Amino acid sequence: MAPTRNAAVIFNQVPTGYPEPGKTTVYDTTRTIDLDNVSLDGGVLLKIIVLSNDPYLRGKMYDARGVSSTLGAPDVYALYASPFHLGEPLSNYGVGRVLRSEDARLRVGDHVTGVLNFEEYAVVGRSSVSGLRKLENKENLSWSAYVGAAGMTGRTAYYAYHEYAKAKKGDNIFVSSGAGAVGSQVIQLAKLDGLKVIGSAGSDDKVAYMKDIGADVAFNYKTTSTEDVLKKEGPLDVYWDNVGGSTLDSALGHMKVNGRLLECGMISAYNTKEPYAFKNIMRIVSFSLSVHGFVELGLADKWEEEFYREYPALIASGKIKYREERSPFSQAGEAILRVQMGDNVAKSVIVVEED
Amino acid sequence: MAPTRNAAVIFNQVPTGYPEPGKTTVYDTTRTIDLDNVSLDGGVLLKIIVLSNDPYLRGKMYDARGVSSTLGAPDVYALYASPFHLGEPLSNYGVGRVLRSEDARLRVGDHVTGVLNFEEYAVVGRSSVSGLRKLENKENLSWSAYVGAAGMTGRTAYYAYHEYAKAKKGDNIFVSSGAGAVGSQVIQLAKLDGLKVIGSAGSDDKVAYMKDIGADVAFNYKTTSTEDVLKKEGPLDVYWDNVGGSTLDSALGHMKVNGRLLECGMISAYNTKEPYAFKNIMRIVSFSLSVHGFVELGLADKWEEEFYREYPALIASGKIKYREERSPFSQAGEAILRVQMGDNVAKSVIVVEED
Repeated sequence: MAPTRNAAVIFNQVPTGYPEPGKTTVYDTTRTIDLDNVSLDGGVLLKIIVLSNDPYLRGKMYDARGVSSTLGAPDVYALYASPFHLGEPLSNYGVGRVLRSEDARLRVGDHVTGVLNFEEYAVVGRSSVSGLRKLENKENLSWSAYVGAAGMTGRTAYYAYHEYAKAKKGDNIFVSSGAGAVGSQVIQLAKLDGLKVIGSAGSDDKVAYMKDIGADVAFNYKTTSTEDVLKKEGPLDVYWDNVGGSTLDSALGHMKVNGRLLECGMISAYNTKEPYAFKNIMRIVSFSLSVHGFVELGLADKWEEEFYREYPALIASGKIKYREERSPFSQAGEAILRVQMGDNVAKSVIVVEED
Repeated sequence: MAPTRNAAVIFNQVPTGYPEPGKTTVYDTTRTIDLDNVSLDGGVLLKIIVLSNDPYLRGKMYDARGVSSTLGAPDVYALYASPFHLGEPLSNYGVGRVLRSEDARLRVGDHVTGVLNFEEYAVVGRSSVSGLRKLENKENLSWSAYVGAAGMTGRTAYYAYHEYAKAKKGDNIFVSSGAGAVGSQVIQLAKLDGLKVIGSAGSDDKVAYMKDIGADVAFNYKTTSTEDVLKKEGPLDVYWDNVGGSTLDSALGHMKVNGRLLECGMISAYNTKEPYAFKNIMRIVSFSLSVHGFVELGLADKWEEEFYREYPALIASGKIKYREERSPFSQAGEAILRVQMGDNVAKSVIVVEED
């Protein structure tokens, strides 16, 4: 059979600042693949359907040469810390459909999710195929849901909330970046458990969205003082932190004894060199607080099966809502830049094949 | 029977700075008690033997009037947060011998430990008597051990180490204030588990003591850079924090993925108004660290029985060592000041009746 086009998004150049489309990332339509004869190496050939676009990708855009691929960290950290390779496609969580299989577990037509290359077609060989999860999708969700609410962002919220929040009905939780891909899932999980939910975000549109999905108190931190809100609506049993810095400091000052802080991110610190001086750090001792950092892969062994049993059904029933911003594959570089600049208004997904 | 002298150490005045003997605290020998006829209110009359002298006592030296005695915190926090009452004796952990009893659980001659008044004789009535623990002392330890290594300081180390360190043989632990009452117990617990132990303290005498009790690496942070030591001897699985500030920041920067930080105290922050700017706080997220604040009473339900089954025997066998600085009751005010100024070289105990 004649070679088929296999367009890809290539890591072309290490960026010094934001990743520029056409320079950092290049959409390359010149590559081809022989779908009938390409070696599967004991794995599968996939048609890629959708790919996730996440903030953490920027951390992988450095020069791999001379750097240990795992930085000495356990395997679960390799994904987040290991660099992309110059001249090769980017990779991230995605969904694909099996076109050919040499793996007994997977059949033609099955849908799978896992870490996939930014290509139209991709071979996942023997050594990686066990990392793919077969998606039954009895709930008939859009495949893109499986890289968002039913994928990594939902898993992050679900795993850590269940592992660390230890919340019960009536508890108070504060979620920063509550309109974000992960924060919006946390708000809804907390509401399902009967918590009082306080959410913060940086625009009135996002405040309206937090109210839509059930937040009891939602405020724009740019126009309303976080300190004032927590003084009025606290004290807190749980704080889900996406931002760090002064917001974390305010939360520390308004926790109850034995409160739990879940450290999902500290975006306020990513782009500043000035370390933040915490006034309330001593509260960790005097209020017996527990502060937990995590990555979702580190909690997967414990929570993955429960998540897939429960969460897609919650989404299908409308009890958990999500929103997404879809970009075509040819515009992946632009979409990546948009997420890095914080201009996306919802979870960004890159659509390689429309449903 | 004629009244018997019942000397006491009275909380006489709220201090503005350090607690001055004769002003903040007064040794009062004018008080008396009728040992035969004083009402026991369903409890016991105790001859006080020894009392503990701890840094946290300073936090109780404020004016009780108009302040909720528990500050709205759960009961386990009331001890640490509630104020002493002006004109009444101080109180803290101690050991006493039962002289008379109306409580079925306790008999004349029994020894008990619990929170006791700074008096020669004290009645513990019906509402408090259940808080006393009867000491079998099969190991024939000095009673003063039961306010130190076999008391609150040992319990603090034992409870939190077992609850949060999750350490296994060969793990690296760093203990700041490693020659202190609690830190020295942590070092020995960690050595019993086969950990590599790094300890820091502020004098060469304390460094020598840390080596005596088994620390693999012991250094004087005033003359050797903590950062340099951790770079050479780390990375760390566990950090036991007694000091906070720059030491905590260095530890954060040298933790392994999934490392545990145990927040026992932040003495560097107690006497400064300037909040510390943490350079490595983001490591909590990127290295999936867990940071645990605690007070020993909050962990007592889970660990107290095991502690008393195991720890006094470890002390008796010499596997756990301790040292103490003994002051007579009449010098309690001076001893309290000494601890507040950090001039004590070992766990301070106040001896009311010599063994």
